[in-house]
Amino acid sequence: MTAQNRIRGLAADETARVLVEALPYVKRFDGKTIVVKLGGNAIDAEVDKALAQDVLLLRQVGVRCIVVHGGGPQIDETLTAFGIERQFKDGLRVTDAATLEAVRMTLVGKVNRDLVAKFNVEAPEDPVAVGVSGEDGGLLLARQLKPELGFVGEVEKVRASVLTRLLDEGLVPIVSTVGADAKGQPYNINADAAACAIASEVGAEKIVYLTAAPGLLADPGDQGSLISRITAAEAEALIASGAVGDGMIPKLTACIRAVIEGVPRAHILDGRIAHSLLIEVLTESGIGTMITPRKVK
Amino acid sequence: MTAQNRIRGLAADETARVLVEALPYVKRFDGKTIVVKLGGNAIDAEVDKALAQDVLLLRQVGVRCIVVHGGGPQIDETLTAFGIERQFKDGLRVTDAATLEAVRMTLVGKVNRDLVAKFNVEAPEDPVAVGVSGEDGGLLLARQLKPELGFVGEVEKVRASVLTRLLDEGLVPIVSTVGADAKGQPYNINADAAACAIASEVGAEKIVYLTAAPGLLADPGDQGSLISRITAAEAEALIASGAVGDGMIPKLTACIRAVIEGVPRAHILDGRIAHSLLIEVLTESGIGTMITPRKVK
Amino acid sequence: MTAQNRIRGLAADETARVLVEALPYVKRFDGKTIVVKLGGNAIDAEVDKALAQDVLLLRQVGVRCIVVHGGGPQIDETLTAFGIERQFKDGLRVTDAATLEAVRMTLVGKVNRDLVAKFNVEAPEDPVAVGVSGEDGGLLLARQLKPELGFVGEVEKVRASVLTRLLDEGLVPIVSTVGADAKGQPYNINADAAACAIASEVGAEKIVYLTAAPGLLADPGDQGSLISRITAAEAEALIASGAVGDGMIPKLTACIRAVIEGVPRAHILDGRIAHSLLIEVLTESGIGTMITPRKVK
Amino acid sequence: MTAQNRIRGLAADETARVLVEALPYVKRFDGKTIVVKLGGNAIDAEVDKALAQDVLLLRQVGVRCIVVHGGGPQIDETLTAFGIERQFKDGLRVTDAATLEAVRMTLVGKVNRDLVAKFNVEAPEDPVAVGVSGEDGGLLLARQLKPELGFVGEVEKVRASVLTRLLDEGLVPIVSTVGADAKGQPYNINADAAACAIASEVGAEKIVYLTAAPGLLADPGDQGSLISRITAAEAEALIASGAVGDGMIPKLTACIRAVIEGVPRAHILDGRIAHSLLIEVLTESGIGTMITPRKVK
Amino acid sequence: MTAQNRIRGLAADETARVLVEALPYVKRFDGKTIVVKLGGNAIDAEVDKALAQDVLLLRQVGVRCIVVHGGGPQIDETLTAFGIERQFKDGLRVTDAATLEAVRMTLVGKVNRDLVAKFNVEAPEDPVAVGVSGEDGGLLLARQLKPELGFVGEVEKVRASVLTRLLDEGLVPIVSTVGADAKGQPYNINADAAACAIASEVGAEKIVYLTAAPGLLADPGDQGSLISRITAAEAEALIASGAVGDGMIPKLTACIRAVIEGVPRAHILDGRIAHSLLIEVLTESGIGTMITPRKVK
Amino acid sequence: MTAQNRIRGLAADETARVLVEALPYVKRFDGKTIVVKLGGNAIDAEVDKALAQDVLLLRQVGVRCIVVHGGGPQIDETLTAFGIERQFKDGLRVTDAATLEAVRMTLVGKVNRDLVAKFNVEAPEDPVAVGVSGEDGGLLLARQLKPELGFVGEVEKVRASVLTRLLDEGLVPIVSTVGADAKGQPYNINADAAACAIASEVGAEKIVYLTAAPGLLADPGDQGSLISRITAAEAEALIASGAVGDGMIPKLTACIRAVIEGVPRAHILDGRIAHSLLIEVLTESGIGTMITPRKVK
Repeated sequence: MTAQNRIRGLAADETARVLVEALPYVKRFDGKTIVVKLGGNAIDAEVDKALAQDVLLLRQVGVRCIVVHGGGPQIDETLTAFGIERQFKDGLRVTDAATLEAVRMTLVGKVNRDLVAKFNVEAPEDPVAVGVSGEDGGLLLARQLKPELGFVGEVEKVRASVLTRLLDEGLVPIVSTVGADAKGQPYNINADAAACAIASEVGAEKIVYLTAAPGLLADPGDQGSLISRITAAEAEALIASGAVGDGMIPKLTACIRAVIEGVPRAHILDGRIAHSLLIEVLTESGIGTMITPRKVK
Repeated sequence: MTAQNRIRGLAADETARVLVEALPYVKRFDGKTIVVKLGGNAIDAEVDKALAQDVLLLRQVGVRCIVVHGGGPQIDETLTAFGIERQFKDGLRVTDAATLEAVRMTLVGKVNRDLVAKFNVEAPEDPVAVGVSGEDGGLLLARQLKPELGFVGEVEKVRASVLTRLLDEGLVPIVSTVGADAKGQPYNINADAAACAIASEVGAEKIVYLTAAPGLLADPGDQGSLISRITAAEAEALIASGAVGDGMIPKLTACIRAVIEGVPRAHILDGRIAHSLLIEVLTESGIGTMITPRKVK
Repeated sequence: MTAQNRIRGLAADETARVLVEALPYVKRFDGKTIVVKLGGNAIDAEVDKALAQDVLLLRQVGVRCIVVHGGGPQIDETLTAFGIERQFKDGLRVTDAATLEAVRMTLVGKVNRDLVAKFNVEAPEDPVAVGVSGEDGGLLLARQLKPELGFVGEVEKVRASVLTRLLDEGLVPIVSTVGADAKGQPYNINADAAACAIASEVGAEKIVYLTAAPGLLADPGDQGSLISRITAAEAEALIASGAVGDGMIPKLTACIRAVIEGVPRAHILDGRIAHSLLIEVLTESGIGTMITPRKVK
Repeated sequence: MTAQNRIRGLAADETARVLVEALPYVKRFDGKTIVVKLGGNAIDAEVDKALAQDVLLLRQVGVRCIVVHGGGPQIDETLTAFGIERQFKDGLRVTDAATLEAVRMTLVGKVNRDLVAKFNVEAPEDPVAVGVSGEDGGLLLARQLKPELGFVGEVEKVRASVLTRLLDEGLVPIVSTVGADAKGQPYNINADAAACAIASEVGAEKIVYLTAAPGLLADPGDQGSLISRITAAEAEALIASGAVGDGMIPKLTACIRAVIEGVPRAHILDGRIAHSLLIEVLTESGIGTMITPRKVK
Repeated sequence: MTAQNRIRGLAADETARVLVEALPYVKRFDGKTIVVKLGGNAIDAEVDKALAQDVLLLRQVGVRCIVVHGGGPQIDETLTAFGIERQFKDGLRVTDAATLEAVRMTLVGKVNRDLVAKFNVEAPEDPVAVGVSGEDGGLLLARQLKPELGFVGEVEKVRASVLTRLLDEGLVPIVSTVGADAKGQPYNINADAAACAIASEVGAEKIVYLTAAPGLLADPGDQGSLISRITAAEAEALIASGAVGDGMIPKLTACIRAVIEGVPRAHILDGRIAHSLLIEVLTESGIGTMITPRKVK
Repeated sequence: MTAQNRIRGLAADETARVLVEALPYVKRFDGKTIVVKLGGNAIDAEVDKALAQDVLLLRQVGVRCIVVHGGGPQIDETLTAFGIERQFKDGLRVTDAATLEAVRMTLVGKVNRDLVAKFNVEAPEDPVAVGVSGEDGGLLLARQLKPELGFVGEVEKVRASVLTRLLDEGLVPIVSTVGADAKGQPYNINADAAACAIASEVGAEKIVYLTAAPGLLADPGDQGSLISRITAAEAEALIASGAVGDGMIPKLTACIRAVIEGVPRAHILDGRIAHSLLIEVLTESGIGTMITPRKVK
């Protein structure tokens, strides 16, 4: 019956400080939408679990999360199993009909499935994760990027209503980025770009790219040189200066494009830190790198 | 400017008769739900197109359709491509982990995708078809059927809310019948049985099995011996008598179970007749075989 | 228990074709309003019955119908019974106080009553036909047409709210066209013109004049010379050319005025063909003559 | 600019007293329904005008009034004009087909029309009176009273929805009591009885019979012997005692029946006193005779 | 059982006239707001009771009343009890911290309390009066009027939402006019001016000042020289001419300001006449003096 | 532009843990009501500020807080200033009319005012604190406790609607516990008991007593002997055993009564720890002592 008061002195202070800081953000993001892009190789099982928890906790307090995923390594595995040879041109995958079918089966029928399962296991009484592909409800209207790449597409138009309808119903859409043109021809679409187009179309408050890096580094060789905040213009200048590492360029470019297209904040977070999404959304200092349209006071 | 009146005499009469007959059904099914089960091999491209049109036309006038599909032949193709050997026990596919992954990739990532594409091509301005798998929103909670069959599951519980939410939003769910247990382990579930469980749970007015036969025949060898109406009890007796062909038994059994579980009408239709769904729903005489809980006046 | 499939071959095709054609119209007219003008002498008991069915069927699928009727022959009978002499000036009935009372008693207390009864007999469980006169709720604000004609009025203003309120409640208004001025003085108003004014005010999608002719004929002597579609301008030219029969001129003029005042389509149908209203509304080719504001592709 | 204060001393007191008394009744009757029965011969033009004002004022403050009318004298005039002989059996009008048509034309096409006009003239900017007959929306389902009386009916069922729908829309229904059976055959129904049936069906708070007498008199020869309040049982005893005048018996009987069928208060008012309806509804002492189900404290 | 008709002849006429006159005002003020300013010394217990009744009766028929009160004499009593000396400068109370606390305790903790109690005693089953001070919900944002007067404030901004929220809930706010600045420092605010600011902010239809005088007199020495109506411009001229008595000037000035700021009517009523509020609101001639923005026809 | 990542290692973990723990409570208490009782002497300015922040933060995320306050020390000051002698009988204040007026002026016109000001200063853009006394809207219907104590009352009935209405409008009621009987006679009511009655009536999820002690101690002399959880029965036994200090008995008794009357949890918290309310509501371990109806797993 008796017990030691476990929240005394400093600890009670600190607990209170985290809560006092977090609640206004809970209020601010109530009813707002956040798009989370998850790379195919940035994260492991442990972190997936924490991410699923974060998304579900945020949903409980009214935040509408859309998860978008890639799947490069998994596609490679399938191609190998099917005995299809991988071809690249200027670093982009040449996608013939057989490759496209393998891509679609892998993204929609495997990677997406596994994510849905991981999310739903976290809330077995109320499983709310739902897989969506760019073909569902005409979500991603695609067009061919370059004839020489075959069925590699780019987003012509986002029909966001399928996502907003699912969100209105309290569901969490997990999106594979295979789109289709008006004739029903599927195309494989780069997930970073698709996430950006979706965030812009749904009027997201934030887009968050989870990566296997602490964020954008002023000096790629120095993990301590993290850039906390940067404007789109500064980020473009940084890319132009050659100071951004190859792997980071597509993420950073997508972030720049997102804020230019009206998303107020884009983030590059370290997906390896458990609950980095929750920390980013609900603390004042945040985590990782934030890209903004212009200087923030 | 001048023209011959094209609806004179008999034709005008007949047109009027079809319309007079159809409108009360339009009214009756307004807001009601119909589950349509589509076999993996019963239908061809032409008929898929007509089915897509039927479902979309019915949706326009307020009917809520859920499409459930199988995919046996397509699964076999994938297994072959992956070099996985097919194994059967008592006519059922033994499903190990590799087979399950192939099944899931095929049903969710290929057959379902192709159907979604076919539906959305019919309404390019308002693409409403959305692929759903039994894992999405915990739709099909599964348990193992028999240990010796591996990951073959049966439906433990249907969480219909993901479907009703989609239908509420005007979308048309197209369902693959891969379910999962509470730990997230996927199972392959027989599509006829899953369609039946879904129809019962959503309170469907009708369940319709589209097959490559005119319906239930009194004499399997005589295509003219179609049975138009039969009660569940009569159908059970017919099966017991040995008069029902092997291919028809699982369909008929699922129909019997559906009406016993409260679906007012179950139908076996000839999927090869274009628009057979529309004709069944909107005419007095209907088409194919109707299974009812008891004698209908 | 066994039965011949009655919808095989051509017949199933044709049934399907009628349904496939009709459903988009059901959708298009859902919640829309159609004004149907019924002449005093164009129709017989059989056709009234079919018309009542058409209106009630259309109502079941969400179409809001307003029926407007005339009653010349019936008025003549009453005048005879009362021993009031009929007087005409330039083909228009000179209406003194006694004549007006006879007109009002006949239209409101007899013709309208008989139509209401005929409609309600078709749906004895849910009788929705309601008689309305132009004096009810101030529906037709009238002014004197010409002093020498006495109490013959023209429409000064339509207060459509009484009709839209009835329609909102799922009722079918059947309208007699006796109006009144602001001092409460009643006037007899031409039913063709009143129907046109009502259709314009309620924002009807269609106005349909049911007549005892197949429609507008290019050659009044040739029943096969039906004009299917004509623009308002072409129709005016046709009248000017003298090619339109006397009886058809007021109908055609009212149609022209209706489309000029914003009703998208006006129709002259053969009221003697049972269900001509249903055929017109729910088939692609329609029936009779359609007057449009301008060329339709 | 200067003026004498016109509401001093007693007068201001009295004005205040009337208002203080009236407002709780305004509140009490807000949203409630009152049925007012108007005899064919009890009232003159002046009083009709005051009644119309009362009904419209009560409507403004939320009271839902239904006006029911008779028309004996006016029917006699029409029969004379048509040259139809009047026949009576036990004081009831024998109604053959020709008489019925004359009755219907008179009630619906003349008396009702004149009342609608009188009401709408009082509110020319917002004319809300709408004529309704017992055939409209199947309001009065009738059956034959006695074969020897021909088309004299009694109320089998009231379908009140047409009235409540009109009231919901802010309209004031004025009702002629011609009903019809399920086959559409019209019948003439006694207006006192029909008003009672309607009041009971719509759940009216009050039914008010306006007559050409001060109310129920203890001594029919003494205008000063007005009975202010009486219970249904007392009223039945009074009729049995022979103390009630012939003309008053049907009114009183209808009142007794109304309170027995659940209408809380029935009133016999002097229709010759202008605004007697308003005074009855909004003052504590009321006016005329009030019939209650049982003793009121 | 028998009784004399108590509403005969003239009396019935007069009752009817008051009612016929009042109901349109009931309608007109339904949902509208009236601000009533009550002086600290104008009224006695009897009149408070009648005022409470008036406000509650008006509330019953949908009028939203806000009562604003002063309390000069009561403040003086408290200061005496506390032994605080009263100081005035140019006729205004110099308010130091101790005086302010006494003012606040008296207005909020005594005068307001007593009014709330008087109102709630009139409706013990449904007590709806609620005391509100200018500090509640930030109702009256204040700033210092003049440094030499200490904590005497003027209204910088009215945050009316606390009042409209209470009114929306059917409550009657009774307002003390102690405001506060953004730092939470309270100020005493003149109640006449505060009532005016509140009326303007809530979009009141009327503001009514209850005083111990019949209204504005053309000749202050002649109680019979009441001015019934006056425009703001005329009233300003009258003040300039010196013809307005000292006690009346602040009331009249507040009235002028109210109509200039958009309140359609301002009134100075004799608070000593019981039910003067009700008479003013619900009769055509009204009572006391009405100030209008411009000439009223 | 560059910055050190401030949430690394342990700290990020801990931040995440607090958030992960808190969000489910945010969800659980969304739309729920918490009653907070604040003693007159338990807290200082600093803690009031933290409490105001806690209540406003909780309100932002949907928690409905009602604050109830006492004011013993402040009442004593007023009595001294007024020169009224303090009298006690059995430890309770004897309250004559003069004392009652001083109590009411102090609680409603001073203590309540100061709290409202402190709350509203924390949210100057959206000041939502509103003072309420037990007389407002008939909140606390009181009766005399014992004749010899004069105007000391106990709660006869709580009319919670004034509070729930304010909460519905997003306002935060701060309650003084002066009630009144049906005749309008005010009574002073013990704030601990009134808070308990209010919590029970509004269906609060929690009642929280803020005190100047760490909670209930097993050994009043040992600050480390805090009892974290105790059932109502155990607490009653503890009181009976004499182990509870005098000052704690009324709090503990009120807590016991609250849980018996249906409040799921009652808490005694250390009001001297800043943000103790927030910590209690949003952490798993909580703080202070929790009294429950029965053993909690």
